Amino acid sequence: MSDLLEALRGTVPADRIVTDPDVISSYTHDEAAWAPYGTPAALVRAGSTGDVRDVVAACAERGVPLVPRGAGTGVSGGANALDGCVLLSLEAMDAIVEINAEERLAVVQPGVVNDALRQACAERGLWYPPDPSSAPWSTIGGNVATNAGGLCCVKYGVTRDYVLAVEAVVGRGEVVRLGRRTAKGVAGYDLCGLMVGSEGTLGVITEVTVRLRGARAPERTVVGYFDTLQAAGEAVGAITAAGIVPSALELVDRHVLEAVDAWRNMGLSADANVLLLGRTDVPGEAGDAEAAAMVRLFEEAGATWSARSSDEAEAEALFSARKLSHQALERLGTLLTEDVCVPRGLLPEMLTRVEATAARNDVHIANVAHAGDGNLHPLIVTPPGDDGARVRAQRAFDEIIADAIALGGTVSGEHGIGLLKRRGLRDEVSPAVIALHHAVKDALDPAGIFNPGKVIGTP
Amino acid sequence: MSDLLEALRGTVPADRIVTDPDVISSYTHDEAAWAPYGTPAALVRAGSTGDVRDVVAACAERGVPLVPRGAGTGVSGGANALDGCVLLSLEAMDAIVEINAEERLAVVQPGVVNDALRQACAERGLWYPPDPSSAPWSTIGGNVATNAGGLCCVKYGVTRDYVLAVEAVVGRGEVVRLGRRTAKGVAGYDLCGLMVGSEGTLGVITEVTVRLRGARAPERTVVGYFDTLQAAGEAVGAITAAGIVPSALELVDRHVLEAVDAWRNMGLSADANVLLLGRTDVPGEAGDAEAAAMVRLFEEAGATWSARSSDEAEAEALFSARKLSHQALERLGTLLTEDVCVPRGLLPEMLTRVEATAARNDVHIANVAHAGDGNLHPLIVTPPGDDGARVRAQRAFDEIIADAIALGGTVSGEHGIGLLKRRGLRDEVSPAVIALHHAVKDALDPAGIFNPGKVIGTP
Repeated sequence: MSDLLEALRGTVPADRIVTDPDVISSYTHDEAAWAPYGTPAALVRAGSTGDVRDVVAACAERGVPLVPRGAGTGVSGGANALDGCVLLSLEAMDAIVEINAEERLAVVQPGVVNDALRQACAERGLWYPPDPSSAPWSTIGGNVATNAGGLCCVKYGVTRDYVLAVEAVVGRGEVVRLGRRTAKGVAGYDLCGLMVGSEGTLGVITEVTVRLRGARAPERTVVGYFDTLQAAGEAVGAITAAGIVPSALELVDRHVLEAVDAWRNMGLSADANVLLLGRTDVPGEAGDAEAAAMVRLFEEAGATWSARSSDEAEAEALFSARKLSHQALERLGTLLTEDVCVPRGLLPEMLTRVEATAARNDVHIANVAHAGDGNLHPLIVTPPGDDGARVRAQRAFDEIIADAIALGGTVSGEHGIGLLKRRGLRDEVSPAVIALHHAVKDALDPAGIFNPGKVIGTP
Repeated sequence: MSDLLEALRGTVPADRIVTDPDVISSYTHDEAAWAPYGTPAALVRAGSTGDVRDVVAACAERGVPLVPRGAGTGVSGGANALDGCVLLSLEAMDAIVEINAEERLAVVQPGVVNDALRQACAERGLWYPPDPSSAPWSTIGGNVATNAGGLCCVKYGVTRDYVLAVEAVVGRGEVVRLGRRTAKGVAGYDLCGLMVGSEGTLGVITEVTVRLRGARAPERTVVGYFDTLQAAGEAVGAITAAGIVPSALELVDRHVLEAVDAWRNMGLSADANVLLLGRTDVPGEAGDAEAAAMVRLFEEAGATWSARSSDEAEAEALFSARKLSHQALERLGTLLTEDVCVPRGLLPEMLTRVEATAARNDVHIANVAHAGDGNLHPLIVTPPGDDGARVRAQRAFDEIIADAIALGGTVSGEHGIGLLKRRGLRDEVSPAVIALHHAVKDALDPAGIFNPGKVIGTP
C-alpha cells in the first residue's frame, strides 16, 4: 500500500492526496442506512482528468479497488468504501465548461452540483430538467452514475435521456470520449448509455455533455386531499387514463405530513391523510384546461378537497414539504429508503401491500411517491437503538421488494442497486441476465478495480 | 454444413427452412449501394422465439455466422449475407402482442411493420412516434437494431427513446429479457439500450416493448422557398436560436425537386431551389404563434416565399415529395446514401462543403436533410454503368464523412454503420473506443456468430 501511495505522490499533486483518517472518515459512506463500509487506504480529491487517469493507472497496476464518489448523497451504498480502496472524490472538478444555447447542450465536470447547473442554464433561458430531490447537493457525476430521476421525470424523463456524451477513464487508465455532441448519432454501440447508471463499476466519469431544453412555461399546481392511499392511487390512474402527462405528480402520506408538521409547523396533517400534488407546464389555455381536468379527476376519485392553487408561494410550500420528507423523518430515527417502481396501474395495489407490510412487521412506514411514474419511496423509520425494529425494518424492506417484483415492477426506479439492492436485482432478473452483467463488467474492467462488488456482487 | 441443416431440421419446423437459391437470393442484401454480400448456406424464416433459440444454438455449436434481418430496407449493408451464413428473417414474427393504454406501452414481435404499429396505436388514441422514411416497409426489429430516426426526431427523439425492453436470444442460445415495463428503472446496466443500435452483432431481438405517447394535436405546416442551401441552413439556425422546437424541419434541394417533378409532375422545381418544410404540433394559439414565428424567421433568412399552408392536402403532398426522394432519384441511377450529422449550427457550412465535394468530384449529389437535427442525407447519384462516376461517387462519400468528422459531427445520424461506414467509425472514435467495442462484442458473443464483421469489423 505504501507502494501505491508512493506511486500516487509521484504523479498526483500532493495536496490532492489525503491520508488523515479523520478527514477520510467523512467520505467512507453515503446515506444508505446500515450499508457496510470498509477502511480506505487513501482519499484522492481529483482536480483534473489527468489526476483520475493517474489514480486509475496506479490502482490497475496493483489491483487496488477504486471507489469513485460525488457528494455522497446516494441511498444504496454505491459510494461506500471498501477495505484498502482508494476513494476518488470528483467534487473538486466542478467547472461548468460550456453552456451552448445554439446546440442546446452543456459540458460540465462531474463535480458540478445539479442545482448549480440548473441555475446557470436558467440564466441563459435554458433548462436542464433532471431534478432529484438531492439537487441542492448532489453532483452531475453522481446523477449520471446512478441515472438519477426526480419530480419532472413523469413528463421529461431521467438523467439518461439528457446525457449526450461522457469523457471517462476506463480500463487501466485510458481516457475515452463516448457519445456525441450532435442531436442524433448511431455510430457504434451506445457505450455512453452503458456508463449511465453503472454506479462507478465500469470506469470514472470525468466530463459530461448534457442536452438542454428551452425554458418552459410557468407551472400551475393542483392539490388534492385524500382519506386513503388507495383513493389517491386511483386518482393517479385516472389522470394517466385520461391521457394527461403532468409535469409532476407526487404523493405524500400522513406519516410524512405529520413529521413535516412536527418539524416545521406547517399544519398539513390537520387537512389530509394523503396529499397529491400535480403540476402542468402546458402553456396558455390548454394548460388551464389540463389543470381543471386534474382537479375534476381528483374529485371523481374521492378527494375530500381539491383545487388549483392560486398562490404560487403556497404551491411551493407544499412541494417543499414533499422535498423535506427525508429530513423531517430522519428526526424520528434511521430511514431505510425504498425505491421500487411498478406499472402505473398497479400503484394502488402496491400501496395496499406496503401498508400491509408495515402492519405485519410492526414497523413505521411513511410514503412519498413519484406517483405518476409508479415510483414509490416507502421510508421505513426505525427509532434509534431499537434493534428489534431494525430487524423488522430490514424484513419489511425485503418484502416490499418481493411485492414489487411480483407485480411486474423493478427493485429500483432511480436510486440504483449499490449494496442494498443486490439481492433484489438477482431476484428481478434471470441468472442469464446476471451472467451478461458479469461479462460486460469483466470486459470493461479487466483489472477488476472499479467499485468491485457493487451492483452485481462477485460471480 | 449439411450437419448444420440436419440439426436445424431436427428442431425448426421444416417449412421455415429455405435452401432454394432463387428464394434465398432475394434475401442476401439490403438497399446499400455496392456493399459486398456473400452466399448464405440457408435462410430460416423464424416463426417463434423458440425457432430463433434453436438457430442460435445450432450456429453457436458449429461457429456458423448468423445474419438477422427484418425487411431489408437498411442502406448501410448491415443485413448483407456472409458466405456460409444462416440468414435469419424475423418478418414472419409479426404479431402485435399488446397495446396497453393505461401503461402507455406496446409489446410487439420484431417483424411488425412500423406503420402497422403506428396505425394500431392511432386506433386507440395512442402514438408511437419514431417515423423513419421506410415506415411503410421497415420492421420494428430492424428499427431497434439500427436505432432508426425519422422526421419527428427533432422534437420527439429516436427509436432508442421509446424502447423499454427487449426479449433477445444471446450467447449460445440463451433467451433473456432486458429492460422493464415500468416508467422508470435503474436495476443493473442498461443492456436493453446496448442492444438498440447494435445492428444484430450482439444477439437477435425476438420481442420489443415500446413506450407510447398519447395522440397529439394536428400539425400545422410552414413552407419556405429559398434560392440557396446556405440561406435555408441559416433559416434552420434561426429557428433553433429562437428556442422553437418544431415537430419536423426538413430540407429538400433542387436536385430532389427536379427528380420528383420528372417522376410525378408536381411542378415543385419551378418555384424553389431549396424547400424547407417546418411543422408544429403545439396545440391552440401557442401553435398558431409558433407557425407564424417560423414563417417570419424563414423570411428574415431570405426566403423567396414563405407561408403557413392553409391546405392540409398540399402540405401532405410536399412532405410526400420529401419521402419520395429516394425512389425518384433511383430512377436516375444508383444512390449512395449519406447520413452524416453535424452540430445544428454548422448545417450551412456542411451544406457548402457537400456542394464543393460534388463540384470537385464531378458527381451529382442531391440533398435531403432532417435539418432541425443537423442530420444530412446527401444522395450521390451515379448513372447506370458509369464506372468512372462510381469511383468518383465513392470518393465523394468518403470526403463527406471526413468533413462531418472535421466539424465535430458523426458519420451516422440514423442509418447505422453496417459495412459502408466501418472506416468512418474508426475515423470518428479513438482506437481505445474501438477496443471497448471489441471487448463488449467478445463478451456478449463468445461464439462469434452474431453478424460478424459488421459495424466494428474484425480486430
